[in-house]
Amino acid sequence: MTWLDLPEDAGFGPDNLPYGVFSTPGTPPRTGVAIGGHVLDLAAATGDGVHATGSLNAFLARGPRAWADLREQLTAWLTDEQHRGRVDPHLVPRAEVRLHLPVEVADYVDFYSSRHHAENLGRLFRPDSEPLPPNWEHLPIGYHGRAGTVAVSGTPVVRPNGQRRAPTDDAPTFGPSQRLDVEAEVGFVVGVGSQLGTPVPLGGFAEHVFGVCLVDDWSARDIQSWEYVPLGPFLGKSFLTSVSPWVVPLAALEAARVRPPARRVPLLPYLDDTDAEPWGLDVRIEVRLNGELVSCPPFDLVYWTPAQQLAHTTVNGARLRTGDLFASGTVSGPAADQRGSLIELTWNGQEPLTLADGTVRTFLEDGDVVTISATAPGTGGGRISLGEVTGRVEPAP
Amino acid sequence: MTWLDLPEDAGFGPDNLPYGVFSTPGTPPRTGVAIGGHVLDLAAATGDGVHATGSLNAFLARGPRAWADLREQLTAWLTDEQHRGRVDPHLVPRAEVRLHLPVEVADYVDFYSSRHHAENLGRLFRPDSEPLPPNWEHLPIGYHGRAGTVAVSGTPVVRPNGQRRAPTDDAPTFGPSQRLDVEAEVGFVVGVGSQLGTPVPLGGFAEHVFGVCLVDDWSARDIQSWEYVPLGPFLGKSFLTSVSPWVVPLAALEAARVRPPARRVPLLPYLDDTDAEPWGLDVRIEVRLNGELVSCPPFDLVYWTPAQQLAHTTVNGARLRTGDLFASGTVSGPAADQRGSLIELTWNGQEPLTLADGTVRTFLEDGDVVTISATAPGTGGGRISLGEVTGRVEPAP
Repeated sequence: MTWLDLPEDAGFGPDNLPYGVFSTPGTPPRTGVAIGGHVLDLAAATGDGVHATGSLNAFLARGPRAWADLREQLTAWLTDEQHRGRVDPHLVPRAEVRLHLPVEVADYVDFYSSRHHAENLGRLFRPDSEPLPPNWEHLPIGYHGRAGTVAVSGTPVVRPNGQRRAPTDDAPTFGPSQRLDVEAEVGFVVGVGSQLGTPVPLGGFAEHVFGVCLVDDWSARDIQSWEYVPLGPFLGKSFLTSVSPWVVPLAALEAARVRPPARRVPLLPYLDDTDAEPWGLDVRIEVRLNGELVSCPPFDLVYWTPAQQLAHTTVNGARLRTGDLFASGTVSGPAADQRGSLIELTWNGQEPLTLADGTVRTFLEDGDVVTISATAPGTGGGRISLGEVTGRVEPAP
Repeated sequence: MTWLDLPEDAGFGPDNLPYGVFSTPGTPPRTGVAIGGHVLDLAAATGDGVHATGSLNAFLARGPRAWADLREQLTAWLTDEQHRGRVDPHLVPRAEVRLHLPVEVADYVDFYSSRHHAENLGRLFRPDSEPLPPNWEHLPIGYHGRAGTVAVSGTPVVRPNGQRRAPTDDAPTFGPSQRLDVEAEVGFVVGVGSQLGTPVPLGGFAEHVFGVCLVDDWSARDIQSWEYVPLGPFLGKSFLTSVSPWVVPLAALEAARVRPPARRVPLLPYLDDTDAEPWGLDVRIEVRLNGELVSCPPFDLVYWTPAQQLAHTTVNGARLRTGDLFASGTVSGPAADQRGSLIELTWNGQEPLTLADGTVRTFLEDGDVVTISATAPGTGGGRISLGEVTGRVEPAP
């Protein structure tokens, strides 16, 4: 299918073609597409200045027709041997590149769309109430996060300082978070903005959203639980949100589309996707702690789809901008080994994880490395990779 | 004090010199400084391209030394008759200009720092609990808002559609908000960013923050009350946040600085401003509904200062960027006519306002115009103006 010499189960085959921003020593950041073990330098290969801007934003703003045209051209280049002479000089080994934040993030919204996650956190944080808040089945709950601290995979996770107060304390204390956690999520990147006052309906999803990345929404649970009533999470989340460097276009995920779970209550028309094109995605996530697989969250079970999240975000007239990023919220499945955060995996620290080296974990310790990766069915019959997002915990300053 | 012919109580005298972005028909947006009834075209008068970029961001990023140098130069130009020939050609009547959003907003954070407002809302939203949440006196509660829907004064306030559920309803309904409200706030514009991982201490406030504007954080109370548990406000706020067009530099507010209210509990060291330079501000706000004065919220009584808000925002290592905007939250005083929102002024609609024309209001009606203005002591002995932020309510689509 391609003249490139690719390993059989590459994950980055010609049916994937994810976009990122890369540099090599002494050269400026520019747009590239991952293919096998290489990056195709789009700035050089196309001669189009839009790929030399150091972020994907300008290309994303061109819209779905431009995205499809370039994908078609790339597919031709990489599958037809006659283009080899043109393309070969612009292939850079991935081992030699540095990857940058792919998108200049405009607004960042984080949702809470996995039922199993929401139920788990409800049981842990609000043991005397119903696990799901009464609004949960009627709308995709979300909140704005800090766009300025979204960073590319590999950025050190410096343990945050902050206020926390245990229920037994009289007053809050200040210091390094003692309950640093990971949240395995899937993120969606907006390419085409919208006008203030004009909602984007369910069917408009693919006109605005370019692609998908992985998100680790690092969380300091002790800071979060003290601060979050009544206006939501703030410093417990805003120290860092890491994203994977490769944005997989929606076009590469056609074979991954599935119906979302059955709805338990009738939805208001702007969210009712009964007769709409489905935007559930069969993405299988893997969470590794110090290299050891600790969880496999199933994204296809997430209750609210990204199309519903986008329709909800804009139904009040809020506009979208190129570079808006919205994420699913922690993905958890029904099984214990499908939970996407340590607070769930260790049940608030009451059931520590024992790792292969014999050490135990409740929350993250300094030096720990968390890596989230994922795959999905590709259009070529195998599975494509969504790459990975990783980070190493460093001590508080 | 100036060779310009200014009215006695101008508000925009030579001790103010606020920055904005303006255009005239057929010319591009550029930076100007308001003086009396004119705008001084800084792009033309200085020849410095930084003032021709269409937002204040690039100039703000230059930092406090550059801000002070330009202020000194402007003061000389406007007070010494010998500069008249140089300056006069670049003065444009304010009546002839269109004003634009002055700052490209990076992250927008809204606080909840007025004790009287927080107590009022606690009584209204959570009548069975203590009015103040237990964390309120220990930290300035805040959350991230939507930067992409911050717009300049005068932008139409289109009534948002959304979900709401009254306590007596079985299920939510969808439609135009029936409880559209105003929130009178003071906003702070970050000029100089900070590094990820490096908190900005209380004493670093003036190294990072350039100036002050007025903010109307329009709120749909019915949407907000249904959605906000557990992750905070989202669509009830994100349809529009309006800001005044003139950003008043901190340097113009030296005479307005006051000690904040006495602290009721000891503060953790990073927030303890007992021995710090005070950053309370004697700003007097006026809220007008269809031209009629309905409230005079006193900003000097706000419990948490902007210096504390900034120290809190960054204490976990979150970085600042040029263009970050953070706002006080609704400003309310202890008296009934000092409340900064209609939900407080009408006590959740139970005590409607009767306007001079005999009509009554609980929340905003289509066609209503809300205008928030403010003044503060200037260094020249009189009061300077913070301008105004206004908006007219238009029907839901």
